[in-house]
Amino acid sequence: MKDVQSERDTRNLPINKVGINQLSFPISVLDRSGKPQHTIARINMYVDLPHHYRGTHMSRFIEVISRHNINLKQEGLDQILKDMRKTFNCETSHLELEFPYFIYKKAPVSKIESPMEYICRVEAKLGKSEKLELIIEVDVPVHSLCPCSKEISSEGAHNQRGVMKIRVIASKMVWFEELIDIAEKSASAPLFTLLKREDEKYITEMAYQNPRFVEDAARDVVTLLNQDNRILWYSVEVTNFESIHNHNAYAYIEKENKNAR
Amino acid sequence: MKDVQSERDTRNLPINKVGINQLSFPISVLDRSGKPQHTIARINMYVDLPHHYRGTHMSRFIEVISRHNINLKQEGLDQILKDMRKTFNCETSHLELEFPYFIYKKAPVSKIESPMEYICRVEAKLGKSEKLELIIEVDVPVHSLCPCSKEISSEGAHNQRGVMKIRVIASKMVWFEELIDIAEKSASAPLFTLLKREDEKYITEMAYQNPRFVEDAARDVVTLLNQDNRILWYSVEVTNFESIHNHNAYAYIEKENKNAR
Amino acid sequence: MKDVQSERDTRNLPINKVGINQLSFPISVLDRSGKPQHTIARINMYVDLPHHYRGTHMSRFIEVISRHNINLKQEGLDQILKDMRKTFNCETSHLELEFPYFIYKKAPVSKIESPMEYICRVEAKLGKSEKLELIIEVDVPVHSLCPCSKEISSEGAHNQRGVMKIRVIASKMVWFEELIDIAEKSASAPLFTLLKREDEKYITEMAYQNPRFVEDAARDVVTLLNQDNRILWYSVEVTNFESIHNHNAYAYIEKENKNAR
Amino acid sequence: MKDVQSERDTRNLPINKVGINQLSFPISVLDRSGKPQHTIARINMYVDLPHHYRGTHMSRFIEVISRHNINLKQEGLDQILKDMRKTFNCETSHLELEFPYFIYKKAPVSKIESPMEYICRVEAKLGKSEKLELIIEVDVPVHSLCPCSKEISSEGAHNQRGVMKIRVIASKMVWFEELIDIAEKSASAPLFTLLKREDEKYITEMAYQNPRFVEDAARDVVTLLNQDNRILWYSVEVTNFESIHNHNAYAYIEKENKNAR
Repeated sequence: MKDVQSERDTRNLPINKVGINQLSFPISVLDRSGKPQHTIARINMYVDLPHHYRGTHMSRFIEVISRHNINLKQEGLDQILKDMRKTFNCETSHLELEFPYFIYKKAPVSKIESPMEYICRVEAKLGKSEKLELIIEVDVPVHSLCPCSKEISSEGAHNQRGVMKIRVIASKMVWFEELIDIAEKSASAPLFTLLKREDEKYITEMAYQNPRFVEDAARDVVTLLNQDNRILWYSVEVTNFESIHNHNAYAYIEKENKNAR
Repeated sequence: MKDVQSERDTRNLPINKVGINQLSFPISVLDRSGKPQHTIARINMYVDLPHHYRGTHMSRFIEVISRHNINLKQEGLDQILKDMRKTFNCETSHLELEFPYFIYKKAPVSKIESPMEYICRVEAKLGKSEKLELIIEVDVPVHSLCPCSKEISSEGAHNQRGVMKIRVIASKMVWFEELIDIAEKSASAPLFTLLKREDEKYITEMAYQNPRFVEDAARDVVTLLNQDNRILWYSVEVTNFESIHNHNAYAYIEKENKNAR
Repeated sequence: MKDVQSERDTRNLPINKVGINQLSFPISVLDRSGKPQHTIARINMYVDLPHHYRGTHMSRFIEVISRHNINLKQEGLDQILKDMRKTFNCETSHLELEFPYFIYKKAPVSKIESPMEYICRVEAKLGKSEKLELIIEVDVPVHSLCPCSKEISSEGAHNQRGVMKIRVIASKMVWFEELIDIAEKSASAPLFTLLKREDEKYITEMAYQNPRFVEDAARDVVTLLNQDNRILWYSVEVTNFESIHNHNAYAYIEKENKNAR
Repeated sequence: MKDVQSERDTRNLPINKVGINQLSFPISVLDRSGKPQHTIARINMYVDLPHHYRGTHMSRFIEVISRHNINLKQEGLDQILKDMRKTFNCETSHLELEFPYFIYKKAPVSKIESPMEYICRVEAKLGKSEKLELIIEVDVPVHSLCPCSKEISSEGAHNQRGVMKIRVIASKMVWFEELIDIAEKSASAPLFTLLKREDEKYITEMAYQNPRFVEDAARDVVTLLNQDNRILWYSVEVTNFESIHNHNAYAYIEKENKNAR
């Protein structure tokens, strides 16, 4: 059979990224304690295509990913990206994963444990330098209580669910658990899957004592990220699903970390 | 050209609904005051198919909808459904529309006006009886404050954005504005696109004075719907995007209205 | 602390369903061979609420689901629903799950195996009769090739990705694999995650030899469902993401199975 | 009432973007012929926040957008951004809009006209230089037919719906219609809302004569964009919803235009 993809292309246009996306695939992710967690990832896999080739053999992406038992940790990603560079004989390979990740959290007073979902993302890239470039991202749903509403109202204060998206480039491994911890500390209160009444009372009062604008939350996250010298660059995006409006409040900070080593 | 759709089918299976869906189409909707409002609808159009025909001519749905200048009101829907029955020579025609609809609401204290979006749906059906069957539905985003959290906490109370979906079958025209009004009256507080600080204070205090479970809100909507004798049947679905959890609280009531005439 | 939910309600309105939804939770599902498969479910849990109670204790839903190690099979669901009825002292309990489910399929010619995702749903209900009512649903992505386009064109035929949603009530266990098999047999061709060139040739030619309207596919699924006497009721929904339009073609059949025992 | 937002902040952290997003708002857009088209936009509005302010007055974004009758054209955006800079006394203002836009297209043979939806985006920014920075983006749904499948199969070829996202920075006004035209010329065939049988035959045969990989389509778009000296920078993203897989094929090119003036 003719190999149409390998035909010579004369348009003289290299392609930055070519591949497959939105592939659903079962993977396992190692948690901080080294224990594997089964989950389902949405996977994107791309390579660069030199100007003289017409196309890519898309089925090879599936062959690569199938060859590797994804136990998500830094070395594993490196091996997949190397395999992609070799299989496609290309300069740069990209692997992006998005997946739900669960942490079993204890409620603050009753101490009952329940699983809480966080959507995590990893973007890994390997170029000519053979040095792994890694972006780690996590969406942390949080509780936020409005300082203005509290201040001006005789009683109560509007509050709402929000989400903090933290994205970092690091020189060493940063665990999802660490970023989630930073986000939850910077919110009016963390969320839990299971709260008994004594916990609900605790969280309600904690949030009322701890009002935060999106601006406050973003700055508090940044203050904590700045103290971590493994982190080279970060972006922080805080979105509040305002409970008094049908639109959202939003704050965004993006920066290189001056304290990075 | 051969007409494949009109081939005789021998599987002896009539089809309940066949047609097109997720068609995006600009329409205008008449508001309560008779003024047209431009919007964009997602449209589904279906007919029944007798067992002896193999297929439907899908392009005719677009021809029908294009023939009618959609100025959404009861008579307009009737004409489209009749045209569908005639064009497809079928027993039953279905027309479903979903669209954003805006109401210009005044903030409670500052009285500044701003547009607020509500997602509306209409499901219209015309069968052999030639009597229009109409379901009207609207999603109303609202503010809800938790009675339990207020009661047990020394200060504050968790609150959140929620959405009430009201769905009715009526003997006479019921306006979206009427259903929206019922939903907003049954919430801890309504939402607004624009609130100045004096308005935010008002809404925060109003909600704190007016705590509602999803169960309360659903029952209050139902109490108001029961009083309207044009309404033959209703369903009410209240969903709160809980600000202390990452899942939702939910209540659902569905019933025939005993007071209907 | 005061138990607000247990207050007496005087509105005299029972609530059909009250509970939590969109809870993300790790579960395992037993496949046809009895092997457990780890996945992540979206879970809804509802109970009825008698007219004289004001509210439900939402945290108890999480306690119930946490008590049961979900190994999805009929007996497991039964136990959770019984536990809900007991915990909430209610008449009717509802449990709904939606989750990705993977089948390792061999490519038709190369015989290389790859995992293919199917979105599955289970709706289970237990009422006063203590008899489990179970609805099984699966979304099967398929390939469809248009008979009209093939017939009228000198070469080629438009084809596209589509999805078949099969929903059944059965007297005995029906496996997802069985419904998926029925859907894939009724399409122009099944989909695969990995196809080498010899497989791509095979699927392309298979589909061209096997053109199907949405109407054809729906009827073929129904013909196969009718032959299964475990199936009491079904609905079949076929949606084609038309490759020559930006809207979809759609067919729907819903019926009680006359051959059911 | 106390102005909490204007409190002095001591964390010494300026914020890149703060504001509101996902605001639904009715707007009108001028088409190429200068005729206004009514549509509904999702709007994001952000400003930068100096390190010494604690927060932003979110309601002022709604006041700004309400003051301007959005008739989307370059001058209009400029005025809104200037108003934002003045209202918030900030350095940089951002306005992002996403909206459905309709073009009435004639079917290729029957010449019957029907409206076709394209999702358009505009990102406008005004900084200290007072020079409007504008990114124009459009999603164009298209038909693509696989060259490999055609070549290796005895009959037929798999084809599918795809979407081309073109994003440009330009020195002068570039119309959505121009980018849509470039995308549709680079596909195997354009899509239409209404096609009669003679049109369906035409499009089927056109696509079969015109097979394109995602790589081909991306390069053809780029070749046309390179010829337009108003365009300073572009990115082109082609995604095919593969009809033989449940994942997508993808190509991406991003570049400064060497021919720009």
